[in-house]
Amino acid sequence: MNTFGKLFTLTTFGESHGVAVGGVVDGMPPGIPIDIDFIQQELARRRPGQSRITTDRKELDQVELLSGVFEGKSTGTPIGFIVRNRNQQSKDYDSIANLFRPSHADYTYYNKYGIRDYRGGGRASARITLSRVVAGALAKLVLKQKGISITAYTSQVGNITLDKDYQKYDFSLIESNPVRCPEPKKAKEMEALIAEMKREGDTIGGVITCVIKGCPAGLGEPEFDKLHAQLGAAMLSINAAKGFEYGEGFASASYRGSQQNDVFIPSSDKQQTHDIKTKTNHSGGIQGGISNGEDIYFRVAFKPVATLLMEQETVNKEGEATKIDVHGRHDPCVLPRAVPIVEAMAAMTILDALLVDNAKRI
Amino acid sequence: MNTFGKLFTLTTFGESHGVAVGGVVDGMPPGIPIDIDFIQQELARRRPGQSRITTDRKELDQVELLSGVFEGKSTGTPIGFIVRNRNQQSKDYDSIANLFRPSHADYTYYNKYGIRDYRGGGRASARITLSRVVAGALAKLVLKQKGISITAYTSQVGNITLDKDYQKYDFSLIESNPVRCPEPKKAKEMEALIAEMKREGDTIGGVITCVIKGCPAGLGEPEFDKLHAQLGAAMLSINAAKGFEYGEGFASASYRGSQQNDVFIPSSDKQQTHDIKTKTNHSGGIQGGISNGEDIYFRVAFKPVATLLMEQETVNKEGEATKIDVHGRHDPCVLPRAVPIVEAMAAMTILDALLVDNAKRI
Amino acid sequence: MNTFGKLFTLTTFGESHGVAVGGVVDGMPPGIPIDIDFIQQELARRRPGQSRITTDRKELDQVELLSGVFEGKSTGTPIGFIVRNRNQQSKDYDSIANLFRPSHADYTYYNKYGIRDYRGGGRASARITLSRVVAGALAKLVLKQKGISITAYTSQVGNITLDKDYQKYDFSLIESNPVRCPEPKKAKEMEALIAEMKREGDTIGGVITCVIKGCPAGLGEPEFDKLHAQLGAAMLSINAAKGFEYGEGFASASYRGSQQNDVFIPSSDKQQTHDIKTKTNHSGGIQGGISNGEDIYFRVAFKPVATLLMEQETVNKEGEATKIDVHGRHDPCVLPRAVPIVEAMAAMTILDALLVDNAKRI
Amino acid sequence: MNTFGKLFTLTTFGESHGVAVGGVVDGMPPGIPIDIDFIQQELARRRPGQSRITTDRKELDQVELLSGVFEGKSTGTPIGFIVRNRNQQSKDYDSIANLFRPSHADYTYYNKYGIRDYRGGGRASARITLSRVVAGALAKLVLKQKGISITAYTSQVGNITLDKDYQKYDFSLIESNPVRCPEPKKAKEMEALIAEMKREGDTIGGVITCVIKGCPAGLGEPEFDKLHAQLGAAMLSINAAKGFEYGEGFASASYRGSQQNDVFIPSSDKQQTHDIKTKTNHSGGIQGGISNGEDIYFRVAFKPVATLLMEQETVNKEGEATKIDVHGRHDPCVLPRAVPIVEAMAAMTILDALLVDNAKRI
Repeated sequence: MNTFGKLFTLTTFGESHGVAVGGVVDGMPPGIPIDIDFIQQELARRRPGQSRITTDRKELDQVELLSGVFEGKSTGTPIGFIVRNRNQQSKDYDSIANLFRPSHADYTYYNKYGIRDYRGGGRASARITLSRVVAGALAKLVLKQKGISITAYTSQVGNITLDKDYQKYDFSLIESNPVRCPEPKKAKEMEALIAEMKREGDTIGGVITCVIKGCPAGLGEPEFDKLHAQLGAAMLSINAAKGFEYGEGFASASYRGSQQNDVFIPSSDKQQTHDIKTKTNHSGGIQGGISNGEDIYFRVAFKPVATLLMEQETVNKEGEATKIDVHGRHDPCVLPRAVPIVEAMAAMTILDALLVDNAKRI
Repeated sequence: MNTFGKLFTLTTFGESHGVAVGGVVDGMPPGIPIDIDFIQQELARRRPGQSRITTDRKELDQVELLSGVFEGKSTGTPIGFIVRNRNQQSKDYDSIANLFRPSHADYTYYNKYGIRDYRGGGRASARITLSRVVAGALAKLVLKQKGISITAYTSQVGNITLDKDYQKYDFSLIESNPVRCPEPKKAKEMEALIAEMKREGDTIGGVITCVIKGCPAGLGEPEFDKLHAQLGAAMLSINAAKGFEYGEGFASASYRGSQQNDVFIPSSDKQQTHDIKTKTNHSGGIQGGISNGEDIYFRVAFKPVATLLMEQETVNKEGEATKIDVHGRHDPCVLPRAVPIVEAMAAMTILDALLVDNAKRI
Repeated sequence: MNTFGKLFTLTTFGESHGVAVGGVVDGMPPGIPIDIDFIQQELARRRPGQSRITTDRKELDQVELLSGVFEGKSTGTPIGFIVRNRNQQSKDYDSIANLFRPSHADYTYYNKYGIRDYRGGGRASARITLSRVVAGALAKLVLKQKGISITAYTSQVGNITLDKDYQKYDFSLIESNPVRCPEPKKAKEMEALIAEMKREGDTIGGVITCVIKGCPAGLGEPEFDKLHAQLGAAMLSINAAKGFEYGEGFASASYRGSQQNDVFIPSSDKQQTHDIKTKTNHSGGIQGGISNGEDIYFRVAFKPVATLLMEQETVNKEGEATKIDVHGRHDPCVLPRAVPIVEAMAAMTILDALLVDNAKRI
Repeated sequence: MNTFGKLFTLTTFGESHGVAVGGVVDGMPPGIPIDIDFIQQELARRRPGQSRITTDRKELDQVELLSGVFEGKSTGTPIGFIVRNRNQQSKDYDSIANLFRPSHADYTYYNKYGIRDYRGGGRASARITLSRVVAGALAKLVLKQKGISITAYTSQVGNITLDKDYQKYDFSLIESNPVRCPEPKKAKEMEALIAEMKREGDTIGGVITCVIKGCPAGLGEPEFDKLHAQLGAAMLSINAAKGFEYGEGFASASYRGSQQNDVFIPSSDKQQTHDIKTKTNHSGGIQGGISNGEDIYFRVAFKPVATLLMEQETVNKEGEATKIDVHGRHDPCVLPRAVPIVEAMAAMTILDALLVDNAKRI
């Protein structure tokens, strides 16, 4: 239940204020040079407090790889890793121990398990996504060797939206601003909106677009493990995700087949059927659940973070009306930090699909 | 890869023009009365040729349960089932044997496996969804005993859209029209649009909304198997699905937290924390990936069917330019037939989550 | 739960006197010529009533492949198959409907599920192993292409035992006698013992030895999926199996390390570390859970069949003392028929391990 | 591949001389008091250097639970844990870095992965079993609440053997001697034999018997996940295990059905079919793969440890003949230390089966 993937798997553990968060990556191909600095950089991208617009919490997340690497290379055995938590105090959270915060997982966890670690959201905290970023970084190291790149960016914050056509944007600009948006002018607007939310103690939702280039044709398994179904499940498992669409997505509902079909282009190399391209790419690089060699692109919707710095009505464990008024720090917009998580989940999904597809080539 | 679920599982097989399609349902709870008429009715809902607006193919799909039922009740052992195909002729498909139809799975299957059953779409045919409907009907029989109902309907065809608020509609009207839309006036418009598509040999996309009522709180497993991630994977595995959103979905990207948070209502029964409700349900009945006892609702986007009755450019296996011109029958809009498939996948997902959640109550 | 394997999987269904038994093979590599006669031959080897010493039931088991094969070759999609049952009468079994036969699965199934199909043992019948033989035959077709052969034989019936060293025997003699024993003199003795059991309405146990030749080094996954653990699980899942040992097995408990260690032999080809052999093979071709390229050999113990043609004391569903006295036909020794089942399970296990190992070679 | 179980799962990582060994337990039922002292005691039982007869290595293995426990109780979320390694030096193992030790996993790992961590056996080291003991201790905490006890003991070392009938022995004596044998006189003999092996730098094999009492009827899943198949797979995954048998095991091969069948005894409570017992228990508490409520008992054979303190011939990575001569410490007999590992694997298997069986009781 806490494991993702079939052949490249990540099993995670940890709560926000427990001893540590971490995980086990199983199925890492052997012989891959493990660039620990790259992993740490990816973690840094996920870290709150990267700029004035996001949460002020400074999390210096230092990952420790515990196994599966020898003389700088992966050995094919599982890679265990942990990131220590620095704050394990319960008392900071005494005020919420007995009540359920609106739109958090407090009530559902309590209902399901009869017990919950209320410190900082416990297992439902965004801090848990650390493990995904570590595993995603490992997957990226393999994919890079195969010429596959994965790029995500913030394409919407509140009502400020980019055009859906990702080809319009220069991906090299994504990391040049704190919202991770490749369009500088929109980035400024988004930044301003998030800053406003922060001032008001409110939060705002948004959308992340992700593009996978260089993915070979043939990945994805009919019937249930279609590549986009796997990607969808991966994305929807990220905290606060509310929707997923690939290719034209929901917009394709309005179109006719004659407008949506992607016509094939004659291959330059007649001996090579693996080389056939399409004129358009409404399909988003996946047809019949299997990649066709074109760019894969998809969008993930995120709701606004539930933690508000304002008084809200709620109930306690006894079902009695009460009020909650959180002070201190909050994250007005999860989008910038979610960008590396989207990439990490995509990287794991693609590598896993690659391994599964590869198995049959005996 | 052709198996869905963890404890209530469906493994499917079959191609459109092979001997039969079918599957194995494993994990059916024992002692459930098996209403074969109900299963057959559900199959009838999926069948093409139900009315003038859909495909003219008359598929008289008769399911045969082969095991797992004794004296009218499930025994807890696997339920194998088949539906015979009536047409296994290859010659009907000679014209497409050596070319790749645009936006079908022809090319990707061929690329992945080096071989494809080109008759009627083979494994990628919508006919394969028969197995899902049978398994979904079995799941529904169990859910009914638990007071859980699942209802889907067509909420968009082309640009004709219903309001997103499902509470506005009378579900008893859904089956009263061939498009399965609970709003009679819009249904008429949708019907007309589909009829137009049929005349033109074109196709049109749409959206299906699904509502799950009576689902207990506590279903769904952190971290990767969040209930909505499971539902999303289930829906995205349906042929032609392009997007999934639950609760407010993509719309929530535009909102503030102060607008989206669902405030808890004091419980009438103070002894019963399982009875706490929310004032609004923007979350769509799932918080932190776990059901909270409110209605679960989600939407699935479908692209227009790829088979057009018009000439299209394409390439053949040798990568050479050619034309394709399909004659005969086609399905101008998959939405009405996809309604029971959406329900079936939802039923299987919820039952599986119920069993997994139940396991821990030792 | 009714699925075997990870990438090459078999999901089975069926009861002895239901409509049909069958299954779904998923993960069959594409492009393999499917020799239906070979599959049917393998089924014939499993069939009761092959000679005067075994059960008199004539089961003409005709397998029907329903999918996954096109123009004589596997397509990579699931292969569904069924074998119809000819006898579905309940009345033949009225006498045992309300009582629990000693050492059968009657009581445990009833206890577990609260309901049981009592006709002919239901799901626990040996007839269910049909599905394994079909899937095993498919696996063998792949393994043959890879130069891997799997041979099993009866090495013990009652107190009549062969030497444990399989190298002493000529495998071409196995199918020359009804007990499937490669030593003709012992085979005669075994045959006589089984005939005696048949006359007395009693049954007798035995041991099957299996040898896998040509298996490449590197198969098997640490830590839990060691190759011998997978083989053991496969064998122990066969009806009436009571023990499994590989290499020297239980005998190695008595030995010293200095007697058991397999010394490596310098490789003739110094450039090729994959070519290193061992002087002895006490290990049974598996070291640290991974195949080392030597012959893999193991033994499976079977208890005597529980169905006796003699009066036995037992209890009924109400827990009251009663007697059971089965008449008609019985199988005095399961060993000869279990030989192809052992081979089938071994073939599936090795193919699955091959696919899993292969995945990482990206 | 490094994960054990279906609903109660253990995923492990770590090498002998890496940073740490550890794992993740997923599926721990919530609300169970976590007795860390008990876990540490179980680890102490596995530790080498417990007495003069075993290895001299003093491993002070301190487990650190990282998550899944709150205010002393399990929360239902994954329990991550690590045990730090104290020795990570490569140079101690320089002499074996380029050669393959006979009957170790050196060659097979190298062949499979093309790289191996040669320090102290790497991933194939017995040290890795630490993680199993931790997870087994957690499982035992749950089973104890359900009245299920699991007891293992050394029943054979070399040619010194106990009677197979476990009922003859007083289990309270098991921990009273360093070999963990409940028969004091035989224990002395075993101790002397192991001491002799130690002096000679040799090693010796043996057998462990395990008995599970209080297991309810109904556990185990047909068809492939029969309870004994799961137990067999669990036991065979332990380092150096060569065979598994349950009930009468290999001995039942020599018996007649009339001697082996377990006759049912009329129930004292006629209203309670769950209360039916058997007169004998040749079956070993499992019939048709499902527990019947009687004692479950089985035996596991272990080969002698491969590490000898004597010169042995072998080859190096280049396939050239060389010699290996290990000095220092070795473990002359793995049996005493394997006793808690057998128990741990049995505990996990039974708890997992309990959860799976429980799921269907909706």
